[in-house]
Order: sequence, then structure tokens, then C-alpha cells
Amino acid sequence: MIKLLEKDPYAPIQYVYEVSEILYKKKSNFQEIMVITNPHFGNMLILDDVVQITERDEFFYHEMLVHPLLHAHPNPENIIIIGGGDGGAVREALKHSTVKKIYFVEIDEEVINVSKKYFPSVACGINDQRVEIKCMDGAEFVKSRKGDIDVVIVDSTDIIGFAKSLFTVEFFKHVKNCLTEEGMFVTLSESLHFHKEMVIEIQESMKLIFPLVDLYTSNIATYAGNWWTFSCASMKHSLREIRRPYNIETKIYSDEMHQHSFLPERFYKKLLNKELKW
Amino acid sequence: MIKLLEKDPYAPIQYVYEVSEILYKKKSNFQEIMVITNPHFGNMLILDDVVQITERDEFFYHEMLVHPLLHAHPNPENIIIIGGGDGGAVREALKHSTVKKIYFVEIDEEVINVSKKYFPSVACGINDQRVEIKCMDGAEFVKSRKGDIDVVIVDSTDIIGFAKSLFTVEFFKHVKNCLTEEGMFVTLSESLHFHKEMVIEIQESMKLIFPLVDLYTSNIATYAGNWWTFSCASMKHSLREIRRPYNIETKIYSDEMHQHSFLPERFYKKLLNKELKW
Repeated sequence: MIKLLEKDPYAPIQYVYEVSEILYKKKSNFQEIMVITNPHFGNMLILDDVVQITERDEFFYHEMLVHPLLHAHPNPENIIIIGGGDGGAVREALKHSTVKKIYFVEIDEEVINVSKKYFPSVACGINDQRVEIKCMDGAEFVKSRKGDIDVVIVDSTDIIGFAKSLFTVEFFKHVKNCLTEEGMFVTLSESLHFHKEMVIEIQESMKLIFPLVDLYTSNIATYAGNWWTFSCASMKHSLREIRRPYNIETKIYSDEMHQHSFLPERFYKKLLNKELKW
Repeated sequence: MIKLLEKDPYAPIQYVYEVSEILYKKKSNFQEIMVITNPHFGNMLILDDVVQITERDEFFYHEMLVHPLLHAHPNPENIIIIGGGDGGAVREALKHSTVKKIYFVEIDEEVINVSKKYFPSVACGINDQRVEIKCMDGAEFVKSRKGDIDVVIVDSTDIIGFAKSLFTVEFFKHVKNCLTEEGMFVTLSESLHFHKEMVIEIQESMKLIFPLVDLYTSNIATYAGNWWTFSCASMKHSLREIRRPYNIETKIYSDEMHQHSFLPERFYKKLLNKELKW
């Protein structure tokens, strides 16, 4: 039996997956792209030896990345999605009838091509006419926009290597500049178990730039540490409240789960005050 | 570098840990007991190749196993803890000044001895005068008690092998018989990610016996599936409410986290109705 040993230099546990078949393995200009099948998870997308998504459980990540902000925003029309070449975030954003335009900014075109072929249920929205694909650095793209974007979503690889530029104060400044007065922003920010200090650092950087910053979590079985965080920011409205009806089809997100996914207030304060010890 | 490859036949992901040193490795009458050290987690207790606790993060499990019920109960005095030979559950229960007696029923005496030696910060309460150690089968012990126990806590190994008898309708009947009119019961019930059907089965079995059944979760990085469930039951009072002041020292549990840890109502209903698809 072939096994895949994940190599995440930031995680104190390595995850091992059974490999039924290797469907694709090739270096792009940016990273090694691999697609395998696993008896439990189905097809799995692996970039530089780190699992990105699995067919079976990708919705835990994609729904929770996209829907909290798209329900907290009163009228999300223009969206930027940076990364997320598999198309999962695009698929979820397209469920919102208010959405008129998605700038889908993926630096690595090969990820899009591979996803269309091996993850059709995930990549299914990429060719929608509301989607404009930009194969370029997301940090560069946000610099070019000014004040007309409702929601910016970062769906990158881990905060190492070439995704690093998406977690700097400078990048957050450019995100702010491209947002409307009611604009909102969300980015993955690693695990509360294993990367607590990193979570705090991202929160502190975002607080330097945005009027409102918050944090919610989702349980993702295939990401090291599992107790996954999403750092989010807003120009005006609280992110914990829902301003639009919840009437889309989802598996894990709901208006009830929206509230539940945010860290309880006192616990969140203790985190930021570095009072949580583990 | 030595590595430990965890062997959990029920999990589609295997976890690998770096081993700095093997401190203990021996078969008892019931299982293979191993203690290793890991650079991140410190000392780790492993039974039959499955990680039970780590020095660094055991409190996520022990606090959340013990404190919700001991705060929901109006006056917990007499407690039974089945399993939990490491002493973590005993340590947490002893934090409650109402507790007068703990029957600590661990089938494998060697686990207690090994824990006292290699996990002193976990096993520290075992010699407390309120604790009575019973080295016997927990299912047998509860049969011998009648109507005088406030809280029964099951802290067993996974629901395979010799712990299986602690997850049957028959066992739940005996638990009920040993509880007072306000009695409560909690047991681990595996992961919502990987063992959803098992969680539902345990819930259904408990509902056959107890007037009130509920479910809460905690994130435990070293348990396969991570999104860990605790199935709980009560003879009279709701388990979601707190009936005693929260004034003990904890790292993850709090009165705020108590409420938060229970599954949102609609989500919980969908789980039991088998409407959650993954």
C-alpha cells in the first residue's frame, strides 16, 4: 500500500494518508501539484506535500471561508478571491444572488487546470460569466483597485513560501484601500492548537489597519491542528451579525452556525491578551 | 529520528509523532502501555498504539470531560470515574469543593502506576483521601451501586476492544440505576468528522434509557478526527445550564465555554435525524 506522509514544517503531528492511486504529479512554475485518491476522502489536492482539499470534506473549509462574510455584508456585489485555484470559494460565493462580479486571482494557472479536471464538483463555478480569472499575484492585484470592492477573500496556501506576502501589514493596507465603506475581508489564519502565536500576530496586524477585526473557527480534519481559524475584518459593520436572509444550500454553514463559529467574547479577549496557555 | 505511527483502525488519517525517547514499553494484562517523549507534546501515554494523553494538551480533554456536568449538577458529591487511569479526570473532579467521594474504577492498575511515575502533573490527585481506587471492570462496578451517585464519568479508551462493554444499552441501564434523581452521566463518544454514525448510535442508545440526552464537543489535536464529542445524559436537569458558580482554575473550560461547547440546537437535531451528510 502506498502512503502519503504530509510534510508540514509548522505542525508537530504529521498526517499519513493511504494512496489508492496517484492521478497527477507535476511541478508548476510555483509548486509541486499532486492529485491522489484515498478510499475515505476521494480525490485529494496536494501542493508541496501539504493537503489543500479533499473531495469529501472540502465544504467544511469553503463554506466557512465564504458564507459568514457574505451574510454579514448587507449587499455583497463585487468580490475578490485570492488563491483558491480549486474553485471552491468561487462556487460558494456564486450561491449569493447579490454577487455580480468575482475577480478570481490565482497565481498558479496549473492549479485551476488540474482542479477542473480532477475536482469538477469543486471547480464547477469557474467558467460562470460573473467570474473573471486573473493569473497573477493577489497582492499586486489589490493594489490596482480603489474603493469598489465589497468583500476580499484570501484562500491561500499556508503562511510560508510565496503566500507570505498575503499576511503583511502592507498587504492589509492595500486590501483596505480597495474596499468600499462597508467592505469586509477574511483570510485563513492557521490553527489555534498549533499556531496560536501566528493567529495573534495576524490579528494584531489587521487591527493596525481595519476598524473592526474578529475571529471565527471551523473544524477541518485534514488541516494540521484541525481547530482552524479565519481572521476577518470590517470597515463598518460587526461580522457576528447576519444582514441578509440565509436561503442557500449548505452542509455545515447556517445562520445558527454563523453565530456559533465566532470565538466567545471573553475567550477571544484572553487569546489576544496572550492569557491562553498551551 | 524515531517516529511513532499511530494505529487507529477507525480513522482514515494516521498521525505520526516524533519520538525523542521511549520511556516505558510493556504489556500489561490488558494492553500494551507505552510512554514516549515528543519535542512539542512532552510525555505521551500510548495504549495499544493509540495516543491517550499528552502532557501539553491533556487539559483540553480532561477539563471538557469533567467540568460541564460538575457545573450543571446542583450539588455533585459522589462521583464514579470509569477508566482514566492517568488521573486527569480525578484531578479535575477534585477541584470541586462539593465532591466528597470519587470511586476511581480503572481496570488496568499498571496504567495508574505508569501515570504516577511519568505524568505527575496529571496523576497528582490519585492519592487524595476522597479517592477510592477500584481496579476492576467499570461495568461490573456500576452494577453494585444503587441510587446514591451524582455523576458517572466514563473516560475509557476508544469504543473497540475491552472498552466496548461501556457503550451498550445494558451498561447505560446500570448507570441509570446507580444515579440519584438528579444524577448525570457523561462519556466520550468519538469524532464528528470520522465517527458520525457511531456518535448517533451512542446517542440513540442513551435516549432509550435516560430522560435527557445531549452532546457537546471539544477540539483535541491528538485524537483522530479532532472534533471530539462527549455524549451526556441527565435524570432531571438540562445539561446546558450551569447551576453552580464557576470559580475554579481552568485553561479551556469556563461558564462561557460551557454553553458554547454544546452543539447548536438545530444542528444537533439534524445530526440525530441523519440529515448531516459527510
